Amino acid sequence: MLYLIGLGLSYKSDITVRGLEAIKRCDRVYLEHYTSILMAASKEELEEFYGKPVILADRELVESCSEEIIRNSDKENVAFLVVGDPFGATTHTDLVLRAKKQNTPVEIIHNASVMNAVGSCGLQLYNFGQTISMVFFTDNWRPDSWYDKILENRKIGLHTLVLLDIKVKEQSIENMARGRLIYEPPRYMSISECCEQLLEIEEKRNTQAYTADTPVVAISRLGSATQTFKSGTIEELATYDSGEPLHSLVILGRQCHELEIEYLLEFCDDRDRFKQDVLKDQQFFKPAPWVPPQEE
Amino acid sequence: MLYLIGLGLSYKSDITVRGLEAIKRCDRVYLEHYTSILMAASKEELEEFYGKPVILADRELVESCSEEIIRNSDKENVAFLVVGDPFGATTHTDLVLRAKKQNTPVEIIHNASVMNAVGSCGLQLYNFGQTISMVFFTDNWRPDSWYDKILENRKIGLHTLVLLDIKVKEQSIENMARGRLIYEPPRYMSISECCEQLLEIEEKRNTQAYTADTPVVAISRLGSATQTFKSGTIEELATYDSGEPLHSLVILGRQCHELEIEYLLEFCDDRDRFKQDVLKDQQFFKPAPWVPPQEE
Repeated sequence: MLYLIGLGLSYKSDITVRGLEAIKRCDRVYLEHYTSILMAASKEELEEFYGKPVILADRELVESCSEEIIRNSDKENVAFLVVGDPFGATTHTDLVLRAKKQNTPVEIIHNASVMNAVGSCGLQLYNFGQTISMVFFTDNWRPDSWYDKILENRKIGLHTLVLLDIKVKEQSIENMARGRLIYEPPRYMSISECCEQLLEIEEKRNTQAYTADTPVVAISRLGSATQTFKSGTIEELATYDSGEPLHSLVILGRQCHELEIEYLLEFCDDRDRFKQDVLKDQQFFKPAPWVPPQEE
Repeated sequence: MLYLIGLGLSYKSDITVRGLEAIKRCDRVYLEHYTSILMAASKEELEEFYGKPVILADRELVESCSEEIIRNSDKENVAFLVVGDPFGATTHTDLVLRAKKQNTPVEIIHNASVMNAVGSCGLQLYNFGQTISMVFFTDNWRPDSWYDKILENRKIGLHTLVLLDIKVKEQSIENMARGRLIYEPPRYMSISECCEQLLEIEEKRNTQAYTADTPVVAISRLGSATQTFKSGTIEELATYDSGEPLHSLVILGRQCHELEIEYLLEFCDDRDRFKQDVLKDQQFFKPAPWVPPQEE
């Protein structure tokens, strides 16, 4: 059996009872280690908690050597652990498809991920549109295709969840060119970096998918003991010190109820001003008022 | 402390280790019992698993008597258990706000919910738009405001998650009028009922937000031992016997990658025809091809 097991967001004890029982039955345990990190537990703590060794699986191992992970899983039990839920990233459906082709039974044990736990900022999950990923800009690579997705979401009033880049086990271009397996220290995008990139692209595109005054919510260390929410405008949060990773951001859409705004007011610096900012921003992309059809 | 604890999707052991530890510390344990059900565990099984009594909380108790739930939670530990994740339904942010107003500390323990576990059908969560709820039509109440939301999602290529109505502890109009506290047996919408209602409203509106040939995926008993996926057109699934509850449906959008289609092919009756249906449906709302700007 191949188990794909979600670890949840932060603590080692965020795994489900059923997930932990499955690990106890496993002969090999892999931990996916390149799309996210478990904030409050190290590999060693997990090994102690599970009572068995954990093999860190980087992108190379998962994408190029998935045969190694699946090996013998028709006769043995193998666990593939994923921070959050196993169905956040494409590569894991790929792993399931490969296992199925070898007639290996697969069991998924779900858990919370940022995709649903983001609801704890107070915004209704029902009103989120497509999710975007914000990557670190470099001198000559500043991709902005996400801008159109924010515009599409906001045109129909929906919130946009922005997932912030993390770089784990990346090589510098020089080391890659020289074939040296030396890795850069891990990097995690901060809220201010994300907001600066948002402002830069709005200035370049200039079609007001959002403005510097558009309200956003910063979500830091979601599900951990130091979880923090901060609401404000993009411009305000471009100078916000969001602290330790991981971070996500939500760009508000027009569909925001009184109760949701009330919840967000808990997290801003100036309640009156933030409320004004939300109301002002809700005028963007507002459909024309309904006019009753003329009688003939 | 007031704990809001997600129970996950199905088994009693779908609770997280941290959630279970919190319950063990609690003086009172409520189970929210009207927006969803835990498929594979009864109240009695939960009580045995937790080692303490569980109080069922219906809509009345949560919405009108939330003071009773929060009572003494500044001095005692109280758990409010929610199937899935605590941040699926508005009323629970309401409970948090009330607790905060009384300076009661609140801790959220997240879990999987249909909002993220739906990814196990193989479609990328990134490409979902707003979520809709499909309620049971009655003779004189056939609400269809969800139709516009599907149209909005599909215009920009996004999938739509449809949550199917459940009726737990509902009174008939006659019993309500006579003030008799007699409740109807619980009802859960089936996939075929949902698809029939979709077809009825498309026929009425006739603006092709979708067609009878639009591909959908039925998700039944998500996360349970009898979890089933079924892909086909809306018309096909209007006669599909989806079995025991709970069910959800995903209406496909245009943004569907080769790997996602491959995954869905596992769940259809006729692979070639389903693939044709997907390709045909992807032509809807397709943006005009990009034309390079004319040189002056």
